[in-house]
Amino acid sequence: MLPQALINAIEALGHLPGVGARTAERYAYFLFKSSPRISQEISSVLGDLHTNVKSCPITFALIDSNEEVSSLYQDPQRDKSTILVVEEPLDIYAIEQTHQFQGTYHVLGGAISPIDGITLNELHVKELMQRITPDTVKEVIIATNPSVEGESTALMLQKMLHEQYPEVKVTRLARGLPLGVDLSYADQITLSAALENRTNL
Amino acid sequence: MLPQALINAIEALGHLPGVGARTAERYAYFLFKSSPRISQEISSVLGDLHTNVKSCPITFALIDSNEEVSSLYQDPQRDKSTILVVEEPLDIYAIEQTHQFQGTYHVLGGAISPIDGITLNELHVKELMQRITPDTVKEVIIATNPSVEGESTALMLQKMLHEQYPEVKVTRLARGLPLGVDLSYADQITLSAALENRTNL
Repeated sequence: MLPQALINAIEALGHLPGVGARTAERYAYFLFKSSPRISQEISSVLGDLHTNVKSCPITFALIDSNEEVSSLYQDPQRDKSTILVVEEPLDIYAIEQTHQFQGTYHVLGGAISPIDGITLNELHVKELMQRITPDTVKEVIIATNPSVEGESTALMLQKMLHEQYPEVKVTRLARGLPLGVDLSYADQITLSAALENRTNL
Repeated sequence: MLPQALINAIEALGHLPGVGARTAERYAYFLFKSSPRISQEISSVLGDLHTNVKSCPITFALIDSNEEVSSLYQDPQRDKSTILVVEEPLDIYAIEQTHQFQGTYHVLGGAISPIDGITLNELHVKELMQRITPDTVKEVIIATNPSVEGESTALMLQKMLHEQYPEVKVTRLARGLPLGVDLSYADQITLSAALENRTNL
Protein backbone atom coordinates (compact mmCIF):
# COMPACT_ATOMS: atom_id res chain seq x y z
CA MET A 1 0.00 0.00 0.00
CA LEU A 2 2.92 2.34 0.73
CA PRO A 3 5.64 2.86 -1.89
CA GLN A 4 8.51 0.40 -1.44
CA ALA A 5 11.15 3.15 -1.04
CA LEU A 6 9.13 4.64 1.84
CA ILE A 7 8.71 1.22 3.50
CA ASN A 8 12.49 0.72 3.20
CA ALA A 9 13.14 4.12 4.80
CA ILE A 10 10.68 3.36 7.64
CA GLU A 11 12.36 0.01 8.31
CA ALA A 12 15.88 1.46 8.23
CA LEU A 13 15.02 4.37 10.55
CA GLY A 14 13.30 1.91 12.88
CA HIS A 15 16.76 0.57 13.80
CA LEU A 16 17.47 3.79 15.76
CA PRO A 17 17.19 3.34 19.54
CA GLY A 18 13.70 4.00 20.95
CA VAL A 19 12.23 4.55 17.48
CA GLY A 20 9.08 2.50 16.89
CA ALA A 21 7.00 2.12 13.75
CA ARG A 22 5.05 5.37 14.24
CA THR A 23 8.13 7.51 14.84
CA ALA A 24 9.97 5.89 11.93
CA GLU A 25 6.96 6.66 9.69
CA ARG A 26 7.03 10.27 10.87
CA TYR A 27 10.78 10.61 10.20
CA ALA A 28 10.51 9.01 6.75
CA TYR A 29 7.53 11.13 5.73
CA PHE A 30 9.23 14.28 7.05
CA LEU A 31 12.33 13.50 4.99
CA PHE A 32 10.20 12.84 1.91
CA LYS A 33 8.38 16.17 2.34
CA SER A 34 11.58 18.12 3.07
CA SER A 35 14.25 19.17 0.64
CA PRO A 36 16.28 16.20 -0.72
CA ARG A 37 19.31 18.09 0.63
CA ILE A 38 18.48 16.92 4.18
CA SER A 39 18.27 13.24 3.21
CA GLN A 40 21.48 13.61 1.24
CA GLU A 41 23.22 15.22 4.22
CA ILE A 42 22.16 12.37 6.53
CA SER A 43 23.16 9.77 3.92
CA SER A 44 26.59 11.23 3.42
CA VAL A 45 27.51 11.84 7.09
CA LEU A 46 26.43 8.36 8.15
CA GLY A 47 28.75 6.94 5.53
CA ASP A 48 31.67 8.75 7.21
CA LEU A 49 30.76 7.73 10.74
CA HIS A 50 32.57 4.40 10.81
CA THR A 51 35.51 5.39 8.64
CA ASN A 52 36.33 8.73 10.32
CA VAL A 53 35.67 7.96 14.01
CA LYS A 54 37.54 5.52 16.25
CA SER A 55 38.14 4.88 19.97
CA CYS A 56 41.26 6.22 21.69
CA PRO A 57 43.40 3.16 22.63
CA ILE A 58 44.20 4.64 26.09
CA THR A 59 41.08 6.51 27.28
CA PHE A 60 38.46 4.97 24.90
CA ALA A 61 37.10 8.43 24.14
CA LEU A 62 35.89 8.87 20.55
CA ILE A 63 38.53 10.48 18.34
CA ASP A 64 39.12 11.32 14.68
CA SER A 65 40.60 8.41 12.73
CA ASN A 66 43.73 10.40 11.97
CA GLU A 67 44.50 11.01 15.67
CA GLU A 68 46.71 8.63 17.65
CA VAL A 69 45.21 9.21 21.09
CA SER A 70 42.56 11.53 22.54
CA SER A 71 43.59 15.20 22.31
CA LEU A 72 42.32 15.71 25.87
CA TYR A 73 44.74 13.05 27.07
CA GLN A 74 47.68 14.45 25.09
CA ASP A 75 47.07 18.03 26.23
CA PRO A 76 49.97 18.91 28.61
CA GLN A 77 47.59 21.32 30.43
CA ARG A 78 45.49 18.39 31.65
CA ASP A 79 46.38 16.72 34.92
CA LYS A 80 47.03 13.04 34.18
CA SER A 81 47.11 12.16 37.89
CA THR A 82 43.30 12.53 38.15
CA ILE A 83 41.15 10.18 36.08
CA LEU A 84 37.39 10.64 35.77
CA VAL A 85 35.74 7.34 34.86
CA VAL A 86 32.54 7.41 32.78
CA GLU A 87 30.33 4.75 31.22
CA GLU A 88 30.02 6.14 27.69
CA PRO A 89 32.13 8.48 25.50
CA LEU A 90 29.43 11.16 25.29
CA ASP A 91 29.51 11.50 29.09
CA ILE A 92 32.92 13.19 28.63
CA TYR A 93 31.23 15.88 26.59
CA ALA A 94 28.72 16.55 29.41
CA ILE A 95 31.50 16.89 32.00
CA GLU A 96 33.66 19.07 29.72
CA GLN A 97 30.79 21.52 29.33
CA THR A 98 31.03 22.32 33.06
CA HIS A 99 34.64 23.60 32.50
CA GLN A 100 35.32 22.42 36.07
CA PHE A 101 37.49 19.38 35.42
CA GLN A 102 41.16 19.60 34.46
CA GLY A 103 42.10 15.91 34.65
CA THR A 104 41.81 13.14 32.08
CA TYR A 105 39.02 10.67 31.30
CA HIS A 106 38.55 6.94 31.01
CA VAL A 107 35.56 5.38 29.26
CA LEU A 108 34.42 2.00 30.61
CA GLY A 109 32.21 1.28 27.62
CA GLY A 110 29.12 0.53 29.71
CA ALA A 111 28.24 -0.70 33.18
CA ILE A 112 28.12 -4.18 34.67
CA SER A 113 24.83 -5.94 34.05
CA PRO A 114 24.61 -9.62 35.03
CA ILE A 115 21.40 -10.07 32.97
CA ASP A 116 23.20 -9.02 29.77
CA GLY A 117 26.32 -10.97 30.78
CA ILE A 118 28.40 -7.80 31.20
CA THR A 119 30.98 -8.12 34.00
CA LEU A 120 34.02 -5.96 34.74
CA ASN A 121 35.92 -8.13 32.20
CA GLU A 122 33.77 -6.81 29.35
CA LEU A 123 34.50 -3.19 30.35
CA HIS A 124 37.76 -1.28 29.85
CA VAL A 125 38.79 -1.83 33.49
CA LYS A 126 42.09 -3.58 32.79
CA GLU A 127 43.15 -0.60 30.67
CA LEU A 128 42.23 1.74 33.54
CA MET A 129 44.39 -0.27 35.95
CA GLN A 130 47.26 -0.09 33.47
CA ARG A 131 47.15 3.72 33.57
CA ILE A 132 47.53 4.04 37.37
CA THR A 133 51.31 3.55 37.61
CA PRO A 134 52.60 5.24 34.39
CA ASP A 135 50.36 8.30 34.94
CA THR A 136 51.14 8.36 38.72
CA VAL A 137 47.42 8.57 39.38
CA LYS A 138 46.44 10.07 42.75
CA GLU A 139 42.64 10.16 42.39
CA VAL A 140 40.04 8.21 40.43
CA ILE A 141 36.64 9.96 40.26
CA ILE A 142 33.93 7.45 39.44
CA ALA A 143 31.17 9.14 37.42
CA THR A 144 29.01 6.18 36.41
CA ASN A 145 25.26 6.78 36.07
CA PRO A 146 23.14 6.85 39.24
CA SER A 147 21.38 3.63 38.15
CA VAL A 148 21.53 0.14 39.69
CA GLU A 149 24.13 -0.88 37.07
CA GLY A 150 26.15 2.30 37.48
CA GLU A 151 26.16 2.04 41.28
CA SER A 152 27.23 -1.63 41.18
CA THR A 153 30.00 -0.77 38.73
CA ALA A 154 31.20 2.03 41.01
CA LEU A 155 31.31 -0.30 44.03
CA MET A 156 33.15 -3.10 42.19
CA LEU A 157 35.63 -0.65 40.74
CA GLN A 158 36.22 0.98 44.12
CA LYS A 159 36.88 -2.45 45.67
CA MET A 160 39.29 -3.44 42.90
CA LEU A 161 41.21 -0.14 43.03
CA HIS A 162 41.41 -0.30 46.81
CA GLU A 163 42.87 -3.83 46.70
CA GLN A 164 45.44 -3.18 43.97
CA TYR A 165 46.31 0.47 44.59
CA PRO A 166 45.42 1.33 48.22
CA GLU A 167 47.26 4.67 47.93
CA VAL A 168 44.89 5.93 45.18
CA LYS A 169 41.99 8.04 46.41
CA VAL A 170 38.65 6.87 44.95
CA THR A 171 35.76 9.36 44.89
CA ARG A 172 32.42 9.59 43.16
CA LEU A 173 30.13 12.43 42.04
CA ALA A 174 27.95 13.86 44.82
CA ARG A 175 24.33 12.81 45.16
CA GLY A 176 21.88 15.61 45.94
CA LEU A 177 19.05 17.75 44.65
CA PRO A 178 19.33 18.69 40.97
CA LEU A 179 18.79 22.37 40.17
CA GLY A 180 15.19 23.43 39.59
CA VAL A 181 13.53 20.34 40.99
CA ASP A 182 10.94 20.91 43.67
CA LEU A 183 11.84 19.35 47.02
CA SER A 184 8.49 17.55 47.17
CA TYR A 185 9.17 15.86 43.81
CA ALA A 186 12.60 14.53 44.76
CA ASP A 187 12.79 10.77 45.37
CA GLN A 188 13.60 9.34 48.81
CA ILE A 189 17.12 8.17 48.01
CA THR A 190 18.15 11.50 46.47
CA LEU A 191 16.66 13.40 49.39
CA SER A 192 18.38 11.13 51.94
CA ALA A 193 21.71 11.66 50.16
CA ALA A 194 21.15 15.43 50.00
CA LEU A 195 20.46 15.50 53.74
CA GLU A 196 23.37 13.28 54.65
CA ASN A 197 25.85 15.22 52.50
CA ARG A 198 24.58 18.64 53.49
CA THR A 199 27.13 21.46 53.14
CA ASN A 200 27.86 24.54 55.30
CA LEU A 201 26.22 27.77 54.16
CA MET B 1 36.20 17.73 21.65
CA LEU B 2 34.07 15.25 19.71
CA PRO B 3 35.34 13.84 16.39
CA GLN B 4 34.14 15.95 13.45
CA ALA B 5 32.38 13.02 11.73
CA LEU B 6 30.34 12.42 14.90
CA ILE B 7 29.45 16.13 15.19
CA ASN B 8 28.33 16.07 11.54
CA ALA B 9 26.14 13.01 12.20
CA ILE B 10 24.61 14.65 15.30
CA GLU B 11 23.82 17.82 13.35
CA ALA B 12 22.33 15.93 10.40
CA LEU B 13 20.15 13.70 12.60
CA GLY B 14 19.02 16.80 14.50
CA HIS B 15 17.02 17.79 11.39
CA LEU B 16 14.53 15.00 12.10
CA PRO B 17 11.25 16.23 13.61
CA GLY B 18 11.22 16.35 17.41
CA VAL B 19 14.88 15.31 17.65
CA GLY B 20 16.93 17.61 19.89
CA ALA B 21 20.64 17.61 20.60
CA ARG B 22 20.49 14.83 23.21
CA THR B 23 18.46 12.45 21.03
CA ALA B 24 20.63 13.19 17.99
CA GLU B 25 23.73 12.38 20.09
CA ARG B 26 22.12 9.13 21.20
CA TYR B 27 21.23 8.16 17.60
CA ALA B 28 24.71 9.04 16.27
CA TYR B 29 26.51 7.16 19.05
CA PHE B 30 24.21 4.16 18.61
CA LEU B 31 24.99 4.07 14.88
CA PHE B 32 28.71 4.36 15.61
CA LYS B 33 28.55 1.46 18.08
CA SER B 34 26.38 -0.71 15.83
CA SER B 35 27.42 -2.59 12.74
CA PRO B 36 28.29 -0.27 9.80
CA ARG B 37 25.62 -2.24 7.90
CA ILE B 38 22.86 -0.25 9.69
CA SER B 39 24.35 3.17 8.79
CA GLN B 40 24.84 1.94 5.24
CA GLU B 41 21.23 0.76 5.04
CA ILE B 42 19.92 4.14 6.25
CA SER B 43 22.27 6.00 3.88
CA SER B 44 21.19 4.02 0.88
CA VAL B 45 17.41 4.04 1.49
CA LEU B 46 17.35 7.78 2.15
CA GLY B 47 19.01 8.30 -1.20
CA ASP B 48 16.11 6.49 -2.90
CA LEU B 49 13.38 8.32 -1.01
CA HIS B 50 13.05 11.30 -3.31
CA THR B 51 13.75 9.49 -6.56
CA ASN B 52 11.46 6.49 -6.03
CA VAL B 53 8.44 8.04 -4.28
CA LYS B 54 5.98 10.59 -5.68
CA SER B 55 2.44 11.84 -5.04
CA CYS B 56 -0.50 10.42 -6.99
CA PRO B 57 -1.79 13.27 -9.24
CA ILE B 58 -5.44 12.39 -8.46
CA THR B 59 -5.58 11.27 -4.81
CA PHE B 60 -2.20 12.67 -3.58
CA ALA B 61 -1.42 9.37 -1.87
CA LEU B 62 2.26 8.42 -1.96
CA ILE B 63 3.07 6.03 -4.81
CA ASP B 64 6.06 4.41 -6.48
CA SER B 65 7.65 6.64 -9.11
CA ASN B 66 6.88 4.08 -11.81
CA GLU B 67 3.12 4.11 -11.08
CA GLU B 68 0.75 6.46 -12.91
CA VAL B 69 -1.87 6.83 -10.20
CA SER B 70 -2.46 5.25 -6.78
CA SER B 71 -3.10 1.49 -7.01
CA LEU B 72 -5.94 1.89 -4.49
CA TYR B 73 -7.62 4.36 -6.83
CA GLN B 74 -7.14 2.19 -9.91
CA ASP B 75 -8.38 -0.99 -8.21
CA PRO B 76 -11.78 -1.81 -9.84
CA GLN B 77 -12.84 -3.43 -6.53
CA ARG B 78 -12.76 -0.03 -4.79
CA ASP B 79 -15.89 2.10 -4.81
CA LYS B 80 -15.01 5.44 -6.44
CA SER B 81 -18.32 7.00 -5.37
CA THR B 82 -17.13 7.24 -1.75
CA ILE B 83 -14.11 9.42 -0.99
CA LEU B 84 -12.45 9.47 2.41
CA VAL B 85 -10.56 12.73 2.92
CA VAL B 86 -7.44 12.72 5.13
CA GLU B 87 -4.82 15.32 6.04
CA GLU B 88 -1.65 13.33 5.36
CA PRO B 89 -0.73 10.32 3.16
CA LEU B 90 0.13 8.07 6.11
CA ASP B 91 -3.44 8.47 7.46
CA ILE B 92 -4.52 6.25 4.53
CA TYR B 93 -2.37 3.49 5.92
CA ALA B 94 -4.08 3.78 9.35
CA ILE B 95 -7.56 3.54 7.79
CA GLU B 96 -6.57 0.67 5.46
CA GLN B 97 -5.42 -1.37 8.45
CA THR B 98 -9.03 -1.46 9.73
CA HIS B 99 -10.05 -3.33 6.49
CA GLN B 100 -13.43 -1.58 6.88
CA PHE B 101 -13.30 0.92 4.04
CA GLN B 102 -13.85 -0.01 0.38
CA GLY B 103 -13.92 3.47 -1.18
CA THR B 104 -11.09 5.69 -2.38
CA TYR B 105 -8.99 8.33 -0.64
CA HIS B 106 -8.06 11.96 -1.08
CA VAL B 107 -5.12 13.55 0.72
CA LEU B 108 -5.47 17.27 1.52
CA GLY B 109 -1.79 17.68 2.32
CA GLY B 110 -2.44 19.30 5.72
CA ALA B 111 -5.15 21.30 7.47
CA ILE B 112 -6.01 25.00 7.39
CA SER B 113 -3.95 27.04 9.80
CA PRO B 114 -4.29 30.85 9.58
CA ILE B 115 -1.11 31.34 11.68
CA ASP B 116 0.97 29.42 9.12
CA GLY B 117 -0.87 31.04 6.22
CA ILE B 118 -2.46 27.76 5.15
CA THR B 119 -5.97 28.24 3.73
CA LEU B 120 -8.10 25.84 1.66
CA ASN B 121 -6.23 27.16 -1.42
CA GLU B 122 -2.96 25.64 -0.18
CA LEU B 123 -4.61 22.23 0.26
CA HIS B 124 -5.65 19.80 -2.50
CA VAL B 125 -9.30 20.92 -2.27
CA LYS B 126 -9.72 21.99 -5.90
CA GLU B 127 -8.56 18.52 -6.98
CA LEU B 128 -11.12 16.96 -4.64
CA MET B 129 -13.91 19.05 -6.17
CA GLN B 130 -12.76 17.96 -9.64
CA ARG B 131 -13.28 14.32 -8.69
CA ILE B 132 -16.95 14.72 -7.63
CA THR B 133 -18.56 14.66 -11.13
CA PRO B 134 -16.31 12.21 -13.07
CA ASP B 135 -16.34 9.70 -10.20
CA THR B 136 -20.11 10.25 -9.56
CA VAL B 137 -19.31 10.72 -5.88
CA LYS B 138 -22.22 10.08 -3.50
CA GLU B 139 -20.44 10.48 -0.16
CA VAL B 140 -17.41 12.35 1.14
CA ILE B 141 -16.18 11.12 4.54
CA ILE B 142 -14.07 13.79 6.21
CA ALA B 143 -11.39 12.16 8.35
CA THR B 144 -9.27 15.16 9.36
CA ASN B 145 -7.60 15.06 12.79
CA PRO B 146 -9.70 15.92 15.86
CA SER B 147 -7.61 19.10 16.40
CA VAL B 148 -8.63 22.76 16.07
CA GLU B 149 -7.09 22.85 12.57
CA GLY B 150 -8.64 19.55 11.54
CA GLU B 151 -12.09 20.55 12.79
CA SER B 152 -11.93 23.93 11.01
CA THR B 153 -10.87 22.21 7.81
CA ALA B 154 -13.77 19.76 8.11
CA LEU B 155 -16.28 22.59 8.57
CA MET B 156 -14.93 24.68 5.67
CA LEU B 157 -14.86 21.63 3.40
CA GLN B 158 -18.39 20.65 4.40
CA LYS B 159 -19.64 24.17 3.61
CA MET B 160 -17.87 24.23 0.24
CA LEU B 161 -19.15 20.79 -0.77
CA HIS B 162 -22.67 21.65 0.34
CA GLU B 163 -22.69 24.85 -1.78
CA GLN B 164 -21.24 23.31 -4.94
CA TYR B 165 -22.60 19.78 -4.76
CA PRO B 166 -25.69 19.78 -2.50
CA GLU B 167 -26.57 16.22 -3.58
CA VAL B 168 -23.31 14.80 -2.12
CA LYS B 169 -23.60 13.40 1.41
CA VAL B 170 -20.85 14.73 3.69
CA THR B 171 -20.01 12.75 6.83
CA ARG B 172 -17.17 12.67 9.32
CA LEU B 173 -15.67 10.05 11.61
CA ALA B 174 -17.56 9.52 14.89
CA ARG B 175 -16.36 11.14 18.09
CA GLY B 176 -16.51 8.96 21.19
CA LEU B 177 -14.52 7.04 23.75
CA PRO B 178 -11.38 5.35 22.43
CA LEU B 179 -10.90 1.71 23.41
CA GLY B 180 -9.14 1.12 26.71
CA VAL B 181 -9.41 4.65 28.09
CA ASP B 182 -10.97 4.99 31.49
CA LEU B 183 -14.18 7.02 31.50
CA SER B 184 -12.82 9.29 34.24
CA TYR B 185 -9.80 10.19 32.10
CA ALA B 186 -11.81 11.16 29.02
CA ASP B 187 -11.94 14.90 28.29
CA GLN B 188 -15.23 16.82 28.43
CA ILE B 189 -15.67 17.28 24.69
CA THR B 190 -15.06 13.60 23.93
CA LEU B 191 -17.42 12.55 26.70
CA SER B 192 -20.13 14.99 25.53
CA ALA B 193 -19.81 13.63 21.99
CA ALA B 194 -19.92 10.04 23.24
CA LEU B 195 -23.10 10.79 25.20
CA GLU B 196 -24.77 12.70 22.36
CA ASN B 197 -23.95 10.02 19.77
CA ARG B 198 -24.81 7.07 22.02
CA THR B 199 -25.84 3.91 20.16
CA ASN B 200 -28.47 1.25 20.90
CA LEU B 201 -27.25 -1.86 22.66
